[in-house]
Amino acid sequence: MNLFKRYLPVLDWGKRYDRKTATSDLVAAVVVTIMLIPQSLAYALLAGLPPEVGLYASILPLVAYAVFGTSRALAVGPVAVVSLMTASAVGELAQQGTPEYLGAAIVLAFLSGLMLIAMGLFRLGFLANLLSHPVISGFITASGLLIASSQLKHVLGVPASGHTLYEILLSLTDHLDQVNWITLGIGTLTTAFLFWVRKDLKKRLLGFGLQPFFADVLTKAGPVAAVATTTLLSAAFALGERGVRLVGDIPSGLPMPQLPGFDSQLWMALAGPALLISVIGFVESVSVAQTLAAKKRQRIDPDQELIGLGASNVASAISGGYPVTGGFARSVVNFDAGAATPAAGAFTAVGIAFATLFLTPLLTFLPQATLAATIIVAVLSLVDVGAIKRTYAYSKSDFTAMAATILVTLFLGVEIGVVTGVSLSIALYLYRNSRPHMAIVGVVPGTEHFRNVERHKVVTGDCVLTLRVDESLFFANSRFLEDKIYALVAERPEIEHVVLMCPAVNEIDASALESLEEINHRLSDSGVSFHLSEVKGPVMDRLKKTDFLDHLTGQVFLSQYEALCTLDPLTAHISESRTPKKVAKSNVWVGPEI
Amino acid sequence: MNLFKRYLPVLDWGKRYDRKTATSDLVAAVVVTIMLIPQSLAYALLAGLPPEVGLYASILPLVAYAVFGTSRALAVGPVAVVSLMTASAVGELAQQGTPEYLGAAIVLAFLSGLMLIAMGLFRLGFLANLLSHPVISGFITASGLLIASSQLKHVLGVPASGHTLYEILLSLTDHLDQVNWITLGIGTLTTAFLFWVRKDLKKRLLGFGLQPFFADVLTKAGPVAAVATTTLLSAAFALGERGVRLVGDIPSGLPMPQLPGFDSQLWMALAGPALLISVIGFVESVSVAQTLAAKKRQRIDPDQELIGLGASNVASAISGGYPVTGGFARSVVNFDAGAATPAAGAFTAVGIAFATLFLTPLLTFLPQATLAATIIVAVLSLVDVGAIKRTYAYSKSDFTAMAATILVTLFLGVEIGVVTGVSLSIALYLYRNSRPHMAIVGVVPGTEHFRNVERHKVVTGDCVLTLRVDESLFFANSRFLEDKIYALVAERPEIEHVVLMCPAVNEIDASALESLEEINHRLSDSGVSFHLSEVKGPVMDRLKKTDFLDHLTGQVFLSQYEALCTLDPLTAHISESRTPKKVAKSNVWVGPEI
Repeated sequence: MNLFKRYLPVLDWGKRYDRKTATSDLVAAVVVTIMLIPQSLAYALLAGLPPEVGLYASILPLVAYAVFGTSRALAVGPVAVVSLMTASAVGELAQQGTPEYLGAAIVLAFLSGLMLIAMGLFRLGFLANLLSHPVISGFITASGLLIASSQLKHVLGVPASGHTLYEILLSLTDHLDQVNWITLGIGTLTTAFLFWVRKDLKKRLLGFGLQPFFADVLTKAGPVAAVATTTLLSAAFALGERGVRLVGDIPSGLPMPQLPGFDSQLWMALAGPALLISVIGFVESVSVAQTLAAKKRQRIDPDQELIGLGASNVASAISGGYPVTGGFARSVVNFDAGAATPAAGAFTAVGIAFATLFLTPLLTFLPQATLAATIIVAVLSLVDVGAIKRTYAYSKSDFTAMAATILVTLFLGVEIGVVTGVSLSIALYLYRNSRPHMAIVGVVPGTEHFRNVERHKVVTGDCVLTLRVDESLFFANSRFLEDKIYALVAERPEIEHVVLMCPAVNEIDASALESLEEINHRLSDSGVSFHLSEVKGPVMDRLKKTDFLDHLTGQVFLSQYEALCTLDPLTAHISESRTPKKVAKSNVWVGPEI
Repeated sequence: MNLFKRYLPVLDWGKRYDRKTATSDLVAAVVVTIMLIPQSLAYALLAGLPPEVGLYASILPLVAYAVFGTSRALAVGPVAVVSLMTASAVGELAQQGTPEYLGAAIVLAFLSGLMLIAMGLFRLGFLANLLSHPVISGFITASGLLIASSQLKHVLGVPASGHTLYEILLSLTDHLDQVNWITLGIGTLTTAFLFWVRKDLKKRLLGFGLQPFFADVLTKAGPVAAVATTTLLSAAFALGERGVRLVGDIPSGLPMPQLPGFDSQLWMALAGPALLISVIGFVESVSVAQTLAAKKRQRIDPDQELIGLGASNVASAISGGYPVTGGFARSVVNFDAGAATPAAGAFTAVGIAFATLFLTPLLTFLPQATLAATIIVAVLSLVDVGAIKRTYAYSKSDFTAMAATILVTLFLGVEIGVVTGVSLSIALYLYRNSRPHMAIVGVVPGTEHFRNVERHKVVTGDCVLTLRVDESLFFANSRFLEDKIYALVAERPEIEHVVLMCPAVNEIDASALESLEEINHRLSDSGVSFHLSEVKGPVMDRLKKTDFLDHLTGQVFLSQYEALCTLDPLTAHISESRTPKKVAKSNVWVGPEI
């Protein structure tokens, strides 16, 4: 029973569902449906799929999310970036327009769904953390540019292809002599109209005294108006006969649910892209869901969100759709329109199903240029130049990862772009952590405090070297620690004792333990004994389980002052009797600058 | 001039070279030469190359290392693990015994050399840190097992093949009916003899009153004795005609130095394996060099070591050899025999060159089973079961990476084994760091100290939530921080202020900054203001460069106590007036258990 509740959030909110909530959800569903119809068609086009596939991906997935998802306002369905990634992954395996291409897109959704569910069950949502914000932001900016440029061919009415910016632009210029001027006219005017709607219309409607809610709905209906107008024009003037590419016949009726067939070679080939799509889709979706939940002081459960999105993708696959995730713009619309529970999504599904059954014949004459225009206007808002500037100003390391992600995504491809960004940000993080801050410390005269010899006037003895390390010790910095200690000892022949002061060491992993053993062993070979001081309780507990302490040539001191008193009583005595001022003047006992 | 000195350590020790040093070096060179001849032949066999290639790889590379290396005692040349990796990499591209196979091995050495030099010049020695000790140890253990099993075919005298343990054992059992009994006899007896030499001989010789040095030299000469004896037997009884596979004619004479040709496809295919060989070889070599240097309180320079090993590999390639690195056993012998400078290596090179010119005709009748026996005895010492047990006892996370490395190396291959180990250890490290320790803190009554509410009796107010985070904030834990704060706020509707206490935060990367902005934004949406306290100087300096502080709904407090006095003066007042004992009794102000 508990398990049911955990994995079926619907059981929780469903119990308290009433007429008032239903009304809110219904209103939101109508608004989202109006917005989602042209989007579904356009994104299917972007993925290189027949337009009806976009509609299929907007029915069952929404129902599945309503049952398994935890966000009250998230609207799932086809989105731009995932459509681009689908086109890129499937385009390597099959020719656009073939049954194999569609089949591969369906398998991609199915695999992605299974992976998301598995990640949810095994609580692997953590994997999404590996995508740093600058890498995601850079990837989305690059995807926006790629998508916009890939749609130019539809606006120009030329055949063109390519998956990278270079290929796309090269292919476009090769075909520039074949521009269809009517298509270009429709495309340009629609783009301009949609930009105007986005930038200006709402302000004007509010100026006319319209209520904000209706002003918003009308603004979001801009693409629907563009679709209706250009479809009518195209039908009235038989533009299809003048070389304008139309959407064409869309099979009406709903697909029969069926499981995708198993083909081990295809599944293997799609496993990598499916994982990337899953993670990118999840990150996008969760950040939208969290933003909206926080506004109402609600919570979403990231692990359950994985299951919700996974179920949506499986549902998409068995109903002939392609990978889906939570979309930003439509979720905000859903939220603003008053969606109170995931049921709003289920109502939207009914709306899309209705459209699929009865409205598709009307779309036969819809020019593809219109859909391309809606995509271009939508994705250019993904390009975030401000984020690039801010990252550059804040952190050169993060900017490096971001710039690499953008350039590789644009010029080599989307999958390698993400992988490069993630690898680089991890490598840069490990690099920063591989050189932990270490300081030679001495005792502050008249106290039992120890401070960096470079920054403070402190007393040090000749025969004891005390090194404080300001980070946990692990594989990436253990060799640095070894090198540092050997170097310090090699240049100071008078040293008899090395004390490693560990107040900031939260963990010593197996590599670092071996390095400490090596340090102990090698120092003993050169006649120096090795001590530790101020080791934290949990770290000490684990060291006690090994034989490290048996072999340690020196001791483990509870406090560094105790170490000093034991190993170098003379210096300890001097530090007590001298006042800081005198020490600063005499300078004899001030540690060397390193 | 400075640059010359930096990159040519020979200029430093060469100046002070005298007759006494030369004598030490010469003695060491003789001992190492005796040990290196059978090793070179055997490891070439292991790499699937003609035996003379092993000799070529033991001449010029040693001279190059003498000029560019920094370790006084490191002996470079063919080693077991790198030979196995060469066989694995080259075996995918060409058939053993063909000129293409040899050509690919030479290119592999050349690429590896160039990569090592580049890593040295760009000071990328850090890359080696990504190999954690348990991963290296697991990889070497698995390599030892793989190598030993791959040599069984020579001991049994059957044709067999395969690169993974499963393939090798399967292929062996398929050919068991073709066992050559004479070969098996030679192989088994030689193996038994060499094991006895290794385990027992030195002790006996010492028992007979021999000086330790000579006992050691005689023990190391065991393989030479085995080679001589079996060669004589094989020649005397014409064993080659009875189906015993012999080494056969080895071209005497030295190879003409020449650059390997450029073939972009081959170079691309070998780039990945070359990188792995470079890093593994470097890690092995540096740890040997450091161990030996520490015994004499000397230092090696890891970045210059990269250049030294790189030069050795380039030298190996242009003289028809294959990848080399510093070997453990022979370096220890070199050190023990008194090698005082890298010149010992150059003298060894002369010895090997002499052997190549004059002794190779004698090796025609050497049975391959003898060489296989020397390999088996040498590599089984690489198998370190103790390390596996120790790692298991010390850290389950490190053990996971180690076990995965061993299993993948044995059953899927050496390259994927290393890559799996490295990826897994990085992933596990990031996973541990993605859940930093955080504690809700309250003020200790009568003090200005703040402590974890779960561990101490402290005073907290209802409207202020103070969370202390005990680690730097970066991409892998920033989402965890967000989730944690939203969850805490969602379950406590009375909260008006959230204070993030940052005394342990050394860095806030761009992802974490965005998370803090999101937290600030979302908390403000739900009417909660967000504050920071005890931010370190350098972190604050960077935050000041952004507009984060302008948008912050709360304040940045120098001390947490100041935050409490400002945000919740009542609780601050109560904490002053109450004694700890009273608070513990009344329990009203003790924070909730989380």
